[in-house]
Amino acid sequence: MVEHAERMRVAWVDTDASGLIHYTAPLRWFEVAEHALMRRLLGGRGLPAERTFLLPRVHVEADFRAPLRYPDEFECVARIAGVGRSSVTFAYDVRRLDGPVCVVGRIVAVAVDLDGHTMPLPAEMRAALTGAL
Amino acid sequence: MVEHAERMRVAWVDTDASGLIHYTAPLRWFEVAEHALMRRLLGGRGLPAERTFLLPRVHVEADFRAPLRYPDEFECVARIAGVGRSSVTFAYDVRRLDGPVCVVGRIVAVAVDLDGHTMPLPAEMRAALTGAL
Amino acid sequence: MVEHAERMRVAWVDTDASGLIHYTAPLRWFEVAEHALMRRLLGGRGLPAERTFLLPRVHVEADFRAPLRYPDEFECVARIAGVGRSSVTFAYDVRRLDGPVCVVGRIVAVAVDLDGHTMPLPAEMRAALTGAL
Amino acid sequence: MVEHAERMRVAWVDTDASGLIHYTAPLRWFEVAEHALMRRLLGGRGLPAERTFLLPRVHVEADFRAPLRYPDEFECVARIAGVGRSSVTFAYDVRRLDGPVCVVGRIVAVAVDLDGHTMPLPAEMRAALTGAL
Repeated sequence: MVEHAERMRVAWVDTDASGLIHYTAPLRWFEVAEHALMRRLLGGRGLPAERTFLLPRVHVEADFRAPLRYPDEFECVARIAGVGRSSVTFAYDVRRLDGPVCVVGRIVAVAVDLDGHTMPLPAEMRAALTGAL
Repeated sequence: MVEHAERMRVAWVDTDASGLIHYTAPLRWFEVAEHALMRRLLGGRGLPAERTFLLPRVHVEADFRAPLRYPDEFECVARIAGVGRSSVTFAYDVRRLDGPVCVVGRIVAVAVDLDGHTMPLPAEMRAALTGAL
Repeated sequence: MVEHAERMRVAWVDTDASGLIHYTAPLRWFEVAEHALMRRLLGGRGLPAERTFLLPRVHVEADFRAPLRYPDEFECVARIAGVGRSSVTFAYDVRRLDGPVCVVGRIVAVAVDLDGHTMPLPAEMRAALTGAL
Repeated sequence: MVEHAERMRVAWVDTDASGLIHYTAPLRWFEVAEHALMRRLLGGRGLPAERTFLLPRVHVEADFRAPLRYPDEFECVARIAGVGRSSVTFAYDVRRLDGPVCVVGRIVAVAVDLDGHTMPLPAEMRAALTGAL
């Protein structure tokens, strides 16, 4: 299994008036770790520079298990959790450097052509993703 | 059933280099509609000004069914989908004014005291939420 | 003088752990009001859908005069403050519905062709902007 | 002169439908570098954990000189540009690892007590900031 761990820190802009992080912050962190994983697996710029198809998210979920505050340091880990004909499932976790897993997540993305129709994952990408399972 | 429909528009900052919205944008919209619903149900400032407890999100999910682009107009609807002893479940959908439901979502929040321990929903809040089911 | 006033409300996600808004929030509001003004002046989708040139910001500034908190209601006003050969200057202010001007801002944008070279504002756009001064 | 250089990368969420970064992204980066500088100068959590006063921004400005795209790597440098009786001025620049300075910025923050009245910078903070000029 190939995974990417991105070391990060809660930024002030990630917080809200509760004093804790806003719940959308980990969803941004997931993508940072995922894109780093994809650049490693696919080379070059990774996924988003592709022009012949898109890979939009069709399902996003996150479970929040422990609080995060500015300026906590953490690792956000991304890995490939599943590969279908047209889809890829990513799994994530956010672990504070001093301890607990704070957030876990899962995102499903589906390959679509430039007209928005679902299409099979390109063979080379599918091979790279499957090899990282 | 009480629900709140907030009429909104995709902002330029909600988009990313794909040309479509970034997947975190609807999660911000969910909260705008939810807070408006809570202000209506609870009066005053609604939930976030409460100081004797917090209501952090423990689960967030969204399914993306149709694309959204700048400057699409849409309605984001929030409603109470479930009330537990300590938790409340919100449901959301985002419907373009010219047609399809683009995003549906669900968020579970749990009451915790200021030390972070789960506690029952305050009785008055629980009554208001249950009355909106 | 043509101006656009957008009525808005501070969202929870606009706040940070200080309990007040994060300083980037008004810069997002400026753009919402500006784009509404541009759609009115230019018709259709306004500026961002243009494909033959871009209008990137080259200077952004804001002065913060009074605090804003969730869930304050306010108006964000955008107007054309200046039109040059290649540039347009927008001015903004954010006024709480219950009183003071909280933020004022100014943004300068410059027309560039798709290779990134400065170019004159297209004549039709220049006429529309100048007419709104 | 003490400065902090934070090495960062343009994230996908920093972009908009123009294909370039949204203009608010560098303003978030400025703060990341500034907070790292302040933690170094002041120890501990740096500024934001202070409870006896706040240091809100009263003026923010940025000049955009060269484009940034996903996934460009860059350094964001923060330094103390001025210290007044009640205020501190930060200066920033964002330089792509492969070359040009892309964005420069300046932020003025002013110490206010918990009632919102301007107050002198606490002596210890003023000394630390002045020593970093």
